[in-house]
Amino acid sequence: MALTYKAPLRDIRFLINEVFNYPEHYKTLKSGENADPETVDMILENVADFSTNVLLPLYQSGDAEGCHFDNGEVTTPKGFKEAYNMFIETGYQGMGYPEKFGGSHMPASLNLIKSEIISTANWSFQMYPGLSLGCMNTIMQYGSQEQKDKYMPKLVEGAWSGTMCLTEAQCGTDLGQVKTKAIPNDDGSYALTGTKIFISAGEHDLTENIIHIVLAKLPNAPEGTKGISLFIVPKFLVNDDGSIGERNAVTCGSIEHKMGIKASATAVLNFDNAKGYLIGEPHKGLKAMFTFMNTARVGTGIQGLAHMELAFQNSLPYAKERRSMRALSGKKEPNQAGDAIIYHADVARMLLTQKAFSEGARSMICHAGRYADKMTEASFAGDHENFEKWDEKLGFYTPVLKGFLTELSIESTKHAMQIFGGHGYINEWGMEQIARDARISTLYEGTTGVQALDLLGRKVLLQSKGKVVLDYTANIMRWCSEYALDKEMRKYAWALTKYCAEWNTLTARIMLTARKDRDIVSAASDDYLMYSGYVMMAYHWARMAAVAHDKLKKGNGKETKAFYQAKIKTAEFYFEKLLPRASGLSESMLTSSETMSLDLDSYSFLD
Amino acid sequence: MALTYKAPLRDIRFLINEVFNYPEHYKTLKSGENADPETVDMILENVADFSTNVLLPLYQSGDAEGCHFDNGEVTTPKGFKEAYNMFIETGYQGMGYPEKFGGSHMPASLNLIKSEIISTANWSFQMYPGLSLGCMNTIMQYGSQEQKDKYMPKLVEGAWSGTMCLTEAQCGTDLGQVKTKAIPNDDGSYALTGTKIFISAGEHDLTENIIHIVLAKLPNAPEGTKGISLFIVPKFLVNDDGSIGERNAVTCGSIEHKMGIKASATAVLNFDNAKGYLIGEPHKGLKAMFTFMNTARVGTGIQGLAHMELAFQNSLPYAKERRSMRALSGKKEPNQAGDAIIYHADVARMLLTQKAFSEGARSMICHAGRYADKMTEASFAGDHENFEKWDEKLGFYTPVLKGFLTELSIESTKHAMQIFGGHGYINEWGMEQIARDARISTLYEGTTGVQALDLLGRKVLLQSKGKVVLDYTANIMRWCSEYALDKEMRKYAWALTKYCAEWNTLTARIMLTARKDRDIVSAASDDYLMYSGYVMMAYHWARMAAVAHDKLKKGNGKETKAFYQAKIKTAEFYFEKLLPRASGLSESMLTSSETMSLDLDSYSFLD
Repeated sequence: MALTYKAPLRDIRFLINEVFNYPEHYKTLKSGENADPETVDMILENVADFSTNVLLPLYQSGDAEGCHFDNGEVTTPKGFKEAYNMFIETGYQGMGYPEKFGGSHMPASLNLIKSEIISTANWSFQMYPGLSLGCMNTIMQYGSQEQKDKYMPKLVEGAWSGTMCLTEAQCGTDLGQVKTKAIPNDDGSYALTGTKIFISAGEHDLTENIIHIVLAKLPNAPEGTKGISLFIVPKFLVNDDGSIGERNAVTCGSIEHKMGIKASATAVLNFDNAKGYLIGEPHKGLKAMFTFMNTARVGTGIQGLAHMELAFQNSLPYAKERRSMRALSGKKEPNQAGDAIIYHADVARMLLTQKAFSEGARSMICHAGRYADKMTEASFAGDHENFEKWDEKLGFYTPVLKGFLTELSIESTKHAMQIFGGHGYINEWGMEQIARDARISTLYEGTTGVQALDLLGRKVLLQSKGKVVLDYTANIMRWCSEYALDKEMRKYAWALTKYCAEWNTLTARIMLTARKDRDIVSAASDDYLMYSGYVMMAYHWARMAAVAHDKLKKGNGKETKAFYQAKIKTAEFYFEKLLPRASGLSESMLTSSETMSLDLDSYSFLD
Repeated sequence: MALTYKAPLRDIRFLINEVFNYPEHYKTLKSGENADPETVDMILENVADFSTNVLLPLYQSGDAEGCHFDNGEVTTPKGFKEAYNMFIETGYQGMGYPEKFGGSHMPASLNLIKSEIISTANWSFQMYPGLSLGCMNTIMQYGSQEQKDKYMPKLVEGAWSGTMCLTEAQCGTDLGQVKTKAIPNDDGSYALTGTKIFISAGEHDLTENIIHIVLAKLPNAPEGTKGISLFIVPKFLVNDDGSIGERNAVTCGSIEHKMGIKASATAVLNFDNAKGYLIGEPHKGLKAMFTFMNTARVGTGIQGLAHMELAFQNSLPYAKERRSMRALSGKKEPNQAGDAIIYHADVARMLLTQKAFSEGARSMICHAGRYADKMTEASFAGDHENFEKWDEKLGFYTPVLKGFLTELSIESTKHAMQIFGGHGYINEWGMEQIARDARISTLYEGTTGVQALDLLGRKVLLQSKGKVVLDYTANIMRWCSEYALDKEMRKYAWALTKYCAEWNTLTARIMLTARKDRDIVSAASDDYLMYSGYVMMAYHWARMAAVAHDKLKKGNGKETKAFYQAKIKTAEFYFEKLLPRASGLSESMLTSSETMSLDLDSYSFLD
């Protein structure tokens, strides 16, 4: 049973044109000059065609075959190399990068939408060009002019790919524990020695070179994260004329056998006096690392959306075709052996939950895309002050996009499996693969726990003492005040106002409690992340409903009418059936850290 | 990294001796004569040793190798046959069955505990003997004396195994759509023709014969579920002297490739004029089917517990050994590169959630075991009236055990993966396998949606008009009244009283709403199931806390003290951190079915 996928272009256009007014926003960007509505439309349609026709057919076969490892060489599944070559011929890899490096310098937000479509058709495929983005962003922001000139053109073209080499066996989150060493060579380069694990796209057969961004420590580096430096370590050294030189001493020791994303090679990389080049300042690697980490985290949020969309698009037709029992309110399809299961309210609930999560997630990402545009523009212009400003603004959304949306993707793909019943567990139907692939998203690029602490501990408390939530909710409340008397919209406005007040109260209570019980920040963080996500998504659904009501008032064709009515219905469903989860979260959030710990020996009594 | 497992005998003894007083209860059973405390202890320890030493080592290798299919023959993974032979030598397969068939006639509840231990060590293995139980229970309850004499001894011994053949490609839940035909032969037997899918243990190399219980339709059978009959269809026909005769025309067409439980063979069975024997009355198969369905559903609830326990036992030591960052309240292990992650409150939360769910689930199963004892005793004695009575009592718990506990197992095994970070996704650590294996539990033997409708639609509304909840909560409230003034316990008593009142109110509101909106029963069912589960488990935690407080007052050794204190701490955690989820559920439960449905064409706008 082959999975199907069509890019949800109608929904994307609704968001970028009707909700977030990208055309106006693009007028404020240099890169916006290249992104007139017609060009955007054309790009979206081409990406959609390519994804459906070239990438989707490789999704299930790539999982079944997996990657092959033989004596240091990694071969991607059948068809991946051909698809990759077609992909780079489109020029989409460098879409968001400056023209002088061969890119077409389109807004970053458009890159995110492109990424959603490709990711939905084949997440494992997307990881290969996807990892390059983090590498490219790091070089653009911190690399010297020489480094940019040397590496960017081939990366932008997609002829080379990039990686992020952070994790070692003993540490992933706590990168201060990194042991990889970088010893200065006489020629200004460095000799790197150490072993990195979990390196996505760390070795493969798609490109002629791989540019690793490696986190390592210089001799006599300060302890912990203050002693981290970043290095460019190419698989093949690059000659001054840009041609490929000798093989560097970085080799792939093995690839992992994983639960999912099996077509994506996860490499163990051994650096054995490999030649590397410092990027950015010595010991300042942690900050630089967050540049590509943020790219990767927003990308993982998009992964969440991608799996939700694919699962929804495939469980919906099954629910219309599979017939079982009769609806409680009476026969719906008297000529069939049973009613289509979509007529059972519990199945409709699972479909609507998927729909509400997918479309809500897309809205959150399209909104964040506007900040990504500003940040990227500043980065490429070397405007560090503005880069920091927009990076900080995006920084509030990043852990929510990464943490909340990936958690939802686990739930959504589970609903899709449930709709298939036992067939959901069988490989050939494809649903269990989507669930397995989604499962990595809450683990890598920082687990959900790491995102939760980043949101509550760093972004909300440490960096802003709650002000970032105050500002965000003030925005929502301003928006609500416009609709307080609107017959259709006031219920959303009132509910949101209540949640905004509660969100601030919860923040303040945690802040107060933390004076005596510092662990409360960790204890409350997961509830806080999910609470923030549900309220944030509620605001998005309210905004979408407002636009839909507005459009309906202005009158439209029948088909269009159904689209807007469905938006309103889904918003209602979200507020009545899904948002109440926030009540449970607020109730449990302040549980003291004391209640949440046991003596280490008291967790288990097995002897 | 090999998984570890030790049977939680201390916890099991706490439940059966201190909370549910099995020794007294066993005095009311005939089979209880065989189950004096010393014998029970000995059995538990032997089962524990066997499970840890023989079955656990085959858990990961069985997944890696899977089952083999070749030309109708199925070979189980390496080591399974030897382990199965050792298993049947112990005599445990027939533990709960009458002595005249070779069993040792122990109480059914002890069988459930045995099953938990074996299941935790190796669920895929457990499925082979596990499926036999449903087959045996059906023969015991509905078979003729001749059928019992013919099939029971070998099944009790474990030399033969049994299956349940219900599902066909077009129907699983809606068995009225079954197409398999049974045509009478001249000799009183029937010729069965049709194809069954998803038949666990449907074909394998562990036993010399397989006894299929097959659901089929007689000629001119009434439409739908009223026309279902049950048949015994042996793989090899059995001669009158009990010896194995000719091969029957039932063949394995293939086995499924699945997300997990890969060492358990899931067969497509083709019946091609296979010889079968009617069991029970013609057209009354649905009722008989529920006998083994209930066995299977309680067994699936135990599967939920099993995966939770194994995941907990393996994520706990990892959380003590893996070091990352510092606890927010300051260094806990100054001599290490970082603090053990168990010191991070969010990790402690995930461990305590697993612990609370595992131990709470075990308590719920041990409680249900008392009903299973009574029901089984009546069944074996041919006492249909008492069988119905206890079957109905157990019937209220069955969908909660099956539906709620398996949903928790998906959450719990997810927490365990999260604790392992990226390593949780890698095959060799074993955590992703547990999660994959757990994933089937909400799909087979009736999806969670089927359990939810069974609980709310059938058991609560249709069969009792809410009385079953009224009775159950009245019991809880009686219990609470004893503790209303108890300094330690009153917080639980008050919380439970509030939830009991709300549970009844919710039931009444759904009943009233259903008069106009019948689909509300389906729309509310999932929230209702989970709500019921959380409240039921809260009652169990309160009872365990009460016993623990009592024991502490009476004074005990230091180690024992820690055990009881941990129970109290976990109960507190459950009430403060997990039970509040019920608030979100009650808030969303009454969402109208109208809000939860869209026009079929409005779910998606892709064209």
